[in-house]
Amino acid sequence: MTEHPFRIVFAIYPGMTHLDFTGPHQFLSRLPGSEVIIASPAGGDVLSEGLIFAGTKRLADIGACDLICVPGGASATAVALDTAFIAEVRRLGLAARYITSVCTGSLILGAAGLLAGRRAACHWAWRYLLPLFGAVPDDGRVVRDGNIMTGGGVTAGIDFALAVLAEIGGVELAQTVQLGLEYAPAPPFDAGRPETAPASSLAAFRGQMAYVQPRREAEVREAARRLGAGRA
Amino acid sequence: MTEHPFRIVFAIYPGMTHLDFTGPHQFLSRLPGSEVIIASPAGGDVLSEGLIFAGTKRLADIGACDLICVPGGASATAVALDTAFIAEVRRLGLAARYITSVCTGSLILGAAGLLAGRRAACHWAWRYLLPLFGAVPDDGRVVRDGNIMTGGGVTAGIDFALAVLAEIGGVELAQTVQLGLEYAPAPPFDAGRPETAPASSLAAFRGQMAYVQPRREAEVREAARRLGAGRA
Repeated sequence: MTEHPFRIVFAIYPGMTHLDFTGPHQFLSRLPGSEVIIASPAGGDVLSEGLIFAGTKRLADIGACDLICVPGGASATAVALDTAFIAEVRRLGLAARYITSVCTGSLILGAAGLLAGRRAACHWAWRYLLPLFGAVPDDGRVVRDGNIMTGGGVTAGIDFALAVLAEIGGVELAQTVQLGLEYAPAPPFDAGRPETAPASSLAAFRGQMAYVQPRREAEVREAARRLGAGRA
Repeated sequence: MTEHPFRIVFAIYPGMTHLDFTGPHQFLSRLPGSEVIIASPAGGDVLSEGLIFAGTKRLADIGACDLICVPGGASATAVALDTAFIAEVRRLGLAARYITSVCTGSLILGAAGLLAGRRAACHWAWRYLLPLFGAVPDDGRVVRDGNIMTGGGVTAGIDFALAVLAEIGGVELAQTVQLGLEYAPAPPFDAGRPETAPASSLAAFRGQMAYVQPRREAEVREAARRLGAGRA
């Protein structure tokens, strides 16, 4: 551990899936000697699926951090086109000890040019888009490649957070936090992955996604184009 | 399903453990035809472990609901002594189709006189306090007794929410939401229950609780005394 507080920045934004953020936040904020900052593109209120997170800082006002964590969500691919936000994620990520994301947050890391040649997790339904940013999709629930730690879809953020806690604070700390938050999951159904979900649930979910998929794909392609243009 | 929207009220308060609330909220807000209301004792901002949830309604302004859900947290036993809050929880609970809680939220339901003779879950470390309210502690992760559905500590709220979704919207809906939120947990450690945690983690957690336990116990005893006095 460094002498200054271990600074964790959650880079959140309107339209994220809030559990991508609150799950890891609940666990990581129990890291002794840490300083947790919630930041967003404009600062202030961030609306997410009916919740309002108030008092966030402007991402551009954060000087540096030890770990940056970017959640995913319905707006993630649109946010990948927010040039200013992406530039701040890149700036903070390049200087951080750990670059992390949950769910489709990895598409934002990708758009920021932080995943070239790196393995990364993503929500199962959107993982196929990672190669557009030069990243290597990995179907692990928690994926580590060097200083990049990424979690799969939404609830994977909790498993991800335990892995991060163990990495930074040690296994015993992670286990003690796990005990305090009683994380001994017992899902009543085994439908959390496309390989195990009933065909009817898979069809229902695919149906819900069908109308957003062309737009999201187009957004990722444009973000990838900009990334490539910036490097050329 | 009734013709009006199925109204879900989360009765939150400063000092709750936010994941007790955000976990179930993320799942339950995907119930088609539902209306989700976030309410608190005073309305407005609710501070919880570094997060600020803005724009909450005053609990006293909510006319009725189909389901009330009360999270737990460090301040739960103090909140059990907030006479006005407890009265509102009781009022809404008595008229609701479902009375629910996560973690030590069941101590608040107990203080509101809603658990007499009923089985209920609670965070493992505080479950022993339930009998002071005439409730029957149950070590299940999700416990149902009639119209009362309760979850164990913190992360149990996700398993609880899936059970609630299945009850209200059917198993297929619950499974589709589970797939969308990729809930196929894979904890890196098996330390989430006192029976499985390493002795060192159990000792560390007990050490952290030692200084708050006398106060919390005293608060629950006083809440139970008031409940008994109100009934005499």
